[in-house]
Amino acid sequence: MNKMEKDYIEQTISSTTIYEGKIIKVDVDKVRLPNGKESFREIVHHSGAVAILAISKENKVIMVKQYRKPLEKTILEIPAGKLEKGEKPLDCAIRELKEETGYTASNMSQIAKFYTSPGFADEIIYLFKAEDIQPGAAKPDEDEFVELVELTIDEVNELINDSKIIDAKTLIALNYWQLEILKKRL
Amino acid sequence: MNKMEKDYIEQTISSTTIYEGKIIKVDVDKVRLPNGKESFREIVHHSGAVAILAISKENKVIMVKQYRKPLEKTILEIPAGKLEKGEKPLDCAIRELKEETGYTASNMSQIAKFYTSPGFADEIIYLFKAEDIQPGAAKPDEDEFVELVELTIDEVNELINDSKIIDAKTLIALNYWQLEILKKRL
Repeated sequence: MNKMEKDYIEQTISSTTIYEGKIIKVDVDKVRLPNGKESFREIVHHSGAVAILAISKENKVIMVKQYRKPLEKTILEIPAGKLEKGEKPLDCAIRELKEETGYTASNMSQIAKFYTSPGFADEIIYLFKAEDIQPGAAKPDEDEFVELVELTIDEVNELINDSKIIDAKTLIALNYWQLEILKKRL
Repeated sequence: MNKMEKDYIEQTISSTTIYEGKIIKVDVDKVRLPNGKESFREIVHHSGAVAILAISKENKVIMVKQYRKPLEKTILEIPAGKLEKGEKPLDCAIRELKEETGYTASNMSQIAKFYTSPGFADEIIYLFKAEDIQPGAAKPDEDEFVELVELTIDEVNELINDSKIIDAKTLIALNYWQLEILKKRL
């Protein structure tokens, strides 16, 4: 731990659990700030998730359209899903890709990990790249309704430019794909 | 609205507010699924935020190190902050860049918008690019402790490859910068 991190730590004075649900747990922590004052931090705990950048033999990215209740709209995302208790991210990525899209991959490797909203939530997403994918039958969860969409890099870039792709993990994955393609051309 | 969106909508049967805090409001909505069954959705409401990709005359990106209580660690991010009630994203971007880093920009334009965690939260981030920036004195909030860091694109790429940059909005902004640089070289 370097000097800066030590100085800036917020010590927990007390923690109150406000809600414990199926997906999230909400705590309010009373903290001691670096300047000695007290403050409160509202924290959403989440089990973490995986997302998968899967590119087909035809050089198309596998995406899903899904209704997202918090936004009250249907958006376009890469396949993703929550980690089950004790589940390894790699196993989760293999499982979620199959469940949501039917695809299985000969090779699945982690390419990034990131926190989605570090100001108020601890959700982490492990991003995987699936290679040599084979189509098959999807097996969505009983409360999950998704539609498969396959897009070329040009279609993806048009959708990004038109602000039609508005999901953070999806933008990170698609930019990764785009960077990979551009670097090959340099 | 196309056929798919209509079919997949989850109708709200009832909504219960569990918590109303300073930063987040937590609701549990009882919904009717597309298959007619009932389910519950846990939803975190957030006022939205801005983030700023600011590049200096020396071609360095302006970043901040900040302790994030939900993660219990200090991470490296681009400047960002929450929208105040009724505040326009552009005004918020100008204000937050000044408060957190002291920099002011001659030109500030929106380059993306995205939802950080559409599965359980409605937080949206408007990403701006600040151009022709001038240094000045920072004015952080009284419960905000940040340290300024300025990095070249090579330093950024090394940190990304080493998984030292692990914030979603920051990865999106830095990939945007990287793509811009690569496209100029093609």
